[in-house]
Amino acid sequence: MSSKNVLTGAKTFFPEVEFVPFEGKDSDNPFAFKYYNPAQLISGKSMADHFRFAIAYWHSFCGNGADPFGMPTRNMPWLNASNPMDRAKDKMDAAFEFITKIQAPYFCFHDFDLIEEGHSLVESEKRLQFIGDYAKEKMAASGVKVLWGTANLFSHPRYMNGAATNPDFSVVAYAAAQVKHALDISIQLGAENYVFWGGREGYLSLLNTDMKREVAHLATFLHAAKDYARSQGFKGHFFIEPKPAEPTKHQYDYDSATVIGFLKANGLENDFKLNIEVNHATLALHTFQHEFDQFPNNLGELTEAMLVILQAGGFQGGGVNFDAKIRRNSTDNTDLFLAHIGGMDTFARALIAADKIINKSAYVSLRNERYASFDSGDGALFEKGKLSLEDLHKLAGSSADPVQKSGKQELFENILNQYI
Amino acid sequence: MSSKNVLTGAKTFFPEVEFVPFEGKDSDNPFAFKYYNPAQLISGKSMADHFRFAIAYWHSFCGNGADPFGMPTRNMPWLNASNPMDRAKDKMDAAFEFITKIQAPYFCFHDFDLIEEGHSLVESEKRLQFIGDYAKEKMAASGVKVLWGTANLFSHPRYMNGAATNPDFSVVAYAAAQVKHALDISIQLGAENYVFWGGREGYLSLLNTDMKREVAHLATFLHAAKDYARSQGFKGHFFIEPKPAEPTKHQYDYDSATVIGFLKANGLENDFKLNIEVNHATLALHTFQHEFDQFPNNLGELTEAMLVILQAGGFQGGGVNFDAKIRRNSTDNTDLFLAHIGGMDTFARALIAADKIINKSAYVSLRNERYASFDSGDGALFEKGKLSLEDLHKLAGSSADPVQKSGKQELFENILNQYI
Amino acid sequence: MSSKNVLTGAKTFFPEVEFVPFEGKDSDNPFAFKYYNPAQLISGKSMADHFRFAIAYWHSFCGNGADPFGMPTRNMPWLNASNPMDRAKDKMDAAFEFITKIQAPYFCFHDFDLIEEGHSLVESEKRLQFIGDYAKEKMAASGVKVLWGTANLFSHPRYMNGAATNPDFSVVAYAAAQVKHALDISIQLGAENYVFWGGREGYLSLLNTDMKREVAHLATFLHAAKDYARSQGFKGHFFIEPKPAEPTKHQYDYDSATVIGFLKANGLENDFKLNIEVNHATLALHTFQHEFDQFPNNLGELTEAMLVILQAGGFQGGGVNFDAKIRRNSTDNTDLFLAHIGGMDTFARALIAADKIINKSAYVSLRNERYASFDSGDGALFEKGKLSLEDLHKLAGSSADPVQKSGKQELFENILNQYI
Amino acid sequence: MSSKNVLTGAKTFFPEVEFVPFEGKDSDNPFAFKYYNPAQLISGKSMADHFRFAIAYWHSFCGNGADPFGMPTRNMPWLNASNPMDRAKDKMDAAFEFITKIQAPYFCFHDFDLIEEGHSLVESEKRLQFIGDYAKEKMAASGVKVLWGTANLFSHPRYMNGAATNPDFSVVAYAAAQVKHALDISIQLGAENYVFWGGREGYLSLLNTDMKREVAHLATFLHAAKDYARSQGFKGHFFIEPKPAEPTKHQYDYDSATVIGFLKANGLENDFKLNIEVNHATLALHTFQHEFDQFPNNLGELTEAMLVILQAGGFQGGGVNFDAKIRRNSTDNTDLFLAHIGGMDTFARALIAADKIINKSAYVSLRNERYASFDSGDGALFEKGKLSLEDLHKLAGSSADPVQKSGKQELFENILNQYI
Repeated sequence: MSSKNVLTGAKTFFPEVEFVPFEGKDSDNPFAFKYYNPAQLISGKSMADHFRFAIAYWHSFCGNGADPFGMPTRNMPWLNASNPMDRAKDKMDAAFEFITKIQAPYFCFHDFDLIEEGHSLVESEKRLQFIGDYAKEKMAASGVKVLWGTANLFSHPRYMNGAATNPDFSVVAYAAAQVKHALDISIQLGAENYVFWGGREGYLSLLNTDMKREVAHLATFLHAAKDYARSQGFKGHFFIEPKPAEPTKHQYDYDSATVIGFLKANGLENDFKLNIEVNHATLALHTFQHEFDQFPNNLGELTEAMLVILQAGGFQGGGVNFDAKIRRNSTDNTDLFLAHIGGMDTFARALIAADKIINKSAYVSLRNERYASFDSGDGALFEKGKLSLEDLHKLAGSSADPVQKSGKQELFENILNQYI
Repeated sequence: MSSKNVLTGAKTFFPEVEFVPFEGKDSDNPFAFKYYNPAQLISGKSMADHFRFAIAYWHSFCGNGADPFGMPTRNMPWLNASNPMDRAKDKMDAAFEFITKIQAPYFCFHDFDLIEEGHSLVESEKRLQFIGDYAKEKMAASGVKVLWGTANLFSHPRYMNGAATNPDFSVVAYAAAQVKHALDISIQLGAENYVFWGGREGYLSLLNTDMKREVAHLATFLHAAKDYARSQGFKGHFFIEPKPAEPTKHQYDYDSATVIGFLKANGLENDFKLNIEVNHATLALHTFQHEFDQFPNNLGELTEAMLVILQAGGFQGGGVNFDAKIRRNSTDNTDLFLAHIGGMDTFARALIAADKIINKSAYVSLRNERYASFDSGDGALFEKGKLSLEDLHKLAGSSADPVQKSGKQELFENILNQYI
Repeated sequence: MSSKNVLTGAKTFFPEVEFVPFEGKDSDNPFAFKYYNPAQLISGKSMADHFRFAIAYWHSFCGNGADPFGMPTRNMPWLNASNPMDRAKDKMDAAFEFITKIQAPYFCFHDFDLIEEGHSLVESEKRLQFIGDYAKEKMAASGVKVLWGTANLFSHPRYMNGAATNPDFSVVAYAAAQVKHALDISIQLGAENYVFWGGREGYLSLLNTDMKREVAHLATFLHAAKDYARSQGFKGHFFIEPKPAEPTKHQYDYDSATVIGFLKANGLENDFKLNIEVNHATLALHTFQHEFDQFPNNLGELTEAMLVILQAGGFQGGGVNFDAKIRRNSTDNTDLFLAHIGGMDTFARALIAADKIINKSAYVSLRNERYASFDSGDGALFEKGKLSLEDLHKLAGSSADPVQKSGKQELFENILNQYI
Repeated sequence: MSSKNVLTGAKTFFPEVEFVPFEGKDSDNPFAFKYYNPAQLISGKSMADHFRFAIAYWHSFCGNGADPFGMPTRNMPWLNASNPMDRAKDKMDAAFEFITKIQAPYFCFHDFDLIEEGHSLVESEKRLQFIGDYAKEKMAASGVKVLWGTANLFSHPRYMNGAATNPDFSVVAYAAAQVKHALDISIQLGAENYVFWGGREGYLSLLNTDMKREVAHLATFLHAAKDYARSQGFKGHFFIEPKPAEPTKHQYDYDSATVIGFLKANGLENDFKLNIEVNHATLALHTFQHEFDQFPNNLGELTEAMLVILQAGGFQGGGVNFDAKIRRNSTDNTDLFLAHIGGMDTFARALIAADKIINKSAYVSLRNERYASFDSGDGALFEKGKLSLEDLHKLAGSSADPVQKSGKQELFENILNQYI
């Protein structure tokens, strides 16, 4: 990534910050990285390659600070132009200025982050084509890439009863049309993945819901989308982002395991993967989309996550997307930088700590020892499925009673704390 | 069920209650059912057959009222005898006295509910054989049946790091031996099902856990158990009871979907079903094991659940097991009756209300109307998977914008409230 | 209340509903009350007087259905006019049409519910004066009254860091000016009470907060507001509405007890009372503002609350304000009626049940019996503070050990369920 | 504290650990402190004096690892003796061995931690007198002190319906007698404070509860206890420990503010203080009893708490009591050391970081700047209560609109993270 070789527009939207350099942990410069050093190698891979940080177009450049109790608070000069196409261009200029200054190699977007939705499908499509061409130029000039694209199927009132699972077929068809456009632009921009987040796919009340029928519609919809994308040459993963509740009371993509079950039951498991949060990172480690209310700043928790991820060989084709909001009252232009710097530095520090724990401490051997009884003898036979219940019954009867063994959790925790 | 034809032992443990009759909603007798009338037909099936109520041996006859802050409170005269076999017999006498007086057709048990665990596997097995024979007689005399049996693989300290997923193979073998005995007695007593509840199968901390290996061991274990049971002629279902957390921080049987995913990934889905709670009743409607901290008394919630269950054709081979505790300070002998009467009456009342909502109100037609656009035309083609994304795109472009349709949740809720 | 003597404007906003009559529990009319019969006497007081139902101006006539994931969904024809004063008049016409048709005797408002905030304090004040005069006429013609008024000190971005507790004095002064206007219009309209809800009074992070100083500012602010209102002849209560969290992380008006402690510490306890939710109803029973995400439809819970309230002599000067939203996808004009009908009927049914439990069941005497040992003898002496710790020590030593007594919670619950 | 000058009994219960020295952050010795250096001065006070760490007698020497799903797991050799007095002595030997080896200056106890409850009040009192004398000797020899004592009024079945708030007077008297004994031994041992934790004071159900009467009994009870203690020369604080729920559904000592309100309403506020958790530390900073499920290991959170505490002048007369359990499966003798070492090191590290943030970073000045408008001019007048609502109204009208100011939360968080 040639992060300083920036193609910006005519205006400068973040004049306060020239560039965010790595300065090391003794720096007092709030606009420098203290731990994130893109080129630094950890376990033979650069930090940049470990994380593949992506900037979320929506929160960063569209989020206005409104909340259920209050109006927008944020000053967004890129929205000042009088016509929607100029606003879209200015917004993209601001985005590329920010992305390159913060040294992020990727961004992610919804269709209607890039542009404002038009008054008709045709108008929206035109706007998308326009901004697609503009993005392509800027990407080429800057080296910034798309981690994934998606369609916003939850904000518009037409989706209040669901998109692919709407009880009204005309809404389902509308959603499909929107996905087609979003796939087209994602493919055009070389997106590495495409995401489905079923924001309104779920129920507010079972009383008025035919869940079986709705879930079947969802599967049919995903098949159609996948078939189209493959027919257009898209080679990436499709990601589904699990979420238990909110905005609906029960989301159909409830959690990782629900989604995996759904995908397998519907023959979608080879194309669709999961966009997962930290806590589920161990279940299906394809990618790592930290979804938070706020930027990550809990060092211990993140170190524990990085430990798991590192030991599993790192992220498998995804990256770290900051799906986080700055606070509603963080209204300085520079707060967006501070939030990302804090998050990226915490990730970097967690990676460094996890690497040391693995390579310098007794951690790995202590953990492996716990399972040593399965490495040979009857334990190994069991692991291979070679022992019947009656075999096991006989073994238990003829052996001494099991010896109590502490789980040593406090020791493991102290080791972790020693390295952060 | 010939509930009055009771084979009791020499002692009477619940002298205060002769029998719990159905007396109707105007009765002021606290020891009579006001709604649960076993023989009354609802939708062509007796209430007894709808619910197949089962009494939980553990909470009802073993639970002593201890909690994390306090000692046992409950007076249990069936535990007064000086030797364990007499205590086991007295406990079973008390259980059959209660079960028949309350008109429950079933009970459920763990191995070490029936007897106290012995000092060795051999001793435990002997005790189980003894109580098995005793139970068989009492079942024959009373008509009471076993809904399911199971093994307690969570109380003993040897399971503090897991049973089938313990890092120590000798514990895994011990658990297998215990399951063999529990299967033997379940088969002997004609249990309709056998349950696995993975109480200690999960992790307290990922730091010291090799989750992948542990989950694989669980699958191997279940295969061995299933193969053995089938070899002994067991024809029933195996049930797995999902639970998200507690006692471990993350249970491997996290929820219905997790379990389904796990079963399918390991080729266990044909033999293993789910023992599910109300809230997941719609996902996999095989049985209905209401698991609560307390006996159910929320009429509205239960009516909503019965609506779903009735429309899906009722329980498929399971029943309603009261896995609930009376309060620690409910120390009168008769409180156990009051708790069950309250719970069974609430279920009965919910069933009656749900039946009326389905058959007398506009509920079903209102709900079906919401999905009418999929009953014919393009919607029906979509449902059959006949429309590509491009077809849908074309349809959306050529149709008028979708018309806004209220979800009418308040109307559905008012209908429900009208019938309770 | 002469609910049929309606003064409506030129337009009819709810043509689908003429009036919501009481028709009794066998009615199938979704737009009739099944239980709420305003004139019916319960314990010698009409239902209307028991509840003093108030319609929330904000959710009912201003709430547009937007949520954190989606745009407005609700069609509000009273906002179609081109200038703000006409919109305010139309909105008030719609409100009075609804309030009188649903037979509610009261409404509640924030300043900027009645009108849209102007571009300056002066402009806002002018608009408030205009709508105040208009409201006065309509109230006189309809008999509808104001339960309470308040100022919205949370929606505008200027309040993002707090209103009375803002670190910037100029915001504090602005908030004070707004409260002055809101008090003026509340007094003009004969509001029975005035409410402070500290929406943004609290902290998002302790790191940047001087909590001690902020809380002191709050007290100073309330003193100034109270002194002004009393100087203008206001005789009603000031209410504070506790809330633990959201929108801030920790609200200064955390809960009832926090507020009571704060009021006493600052000499405000004689003028300020609490606007409380059901769960805290027993702590300080001045009024009862059920605050919900949705309209109340849990009959058992509400009956338990009405039991407490009835036994404490009913509401003391407050009423039941429906601070609840219809669902975002409840977009029919008539859904607002259905939501309120459901809520009012559930309250009425709970009142009827609670009255029966008190007057027809053994409930009251069973509960009193539990405390009989304090009605005479040493227990009565203790209750009067006449026994020292040494006296009690001596009594304990010379008495038999306490006899175990069941709490009988299941019995109490069954009695409650019998009457709902 | 002369931690090496230990008076131990004949047996050694923790032979694996000789003493826990401070070795600094580069040590790999799991039984050494890496940050906690008792003598090291921070802001002119030794770490030992900052924290005044206390060991909880109950969890550390009585907790057996039982949980709601499982039996005891922990090996406690100090309970092996055949008579209760020898067990009490051995337990105290084990406690003093541990306390002195871990360098903790204090311990805390319930009456029935020190001894097993006898079969009568008289027997319990005799046992307490015996162990009191024994403790006195060991305290003199070791320099270890008592931070506070208390009575266990929640474990015994007699308290299942409450202790001071029990509906049965004979239980109230029994509780009073127990408190008298606990006060006597606390005074004998020079306890600096005495604690009331109302474990069973609250309700499981409002249905069977006369809350008003119960709360009045609680106040009467506390008055009697206080009067007795003062008459015996006790000069310390009485602490009340707030807790919202569990074991009851609603505890009367719900939270800090509830307790403060209760104390003031009953004239107890001069003698009774609060035993508080971290999150409420700012409300009433008398002491700091971190109550956790586990030992603290979240460095960021603890640093934020220490920041608040340091700036408020440190703990006022209390200390840090580790009311935390080792995990049920942490069954090695040494795990108790590891847990405390981890917790004490995390506290020490948090203190060091907080001190640096205050003294080396821009933190304090950045925070003060936010409130600068109240330091002079009209803001200062407001703070003194010199401005009426009309004055404020006038000021707001004549000033420019408030200027938007970012809360800079991300900046504050980044500063905190820089120093941990």
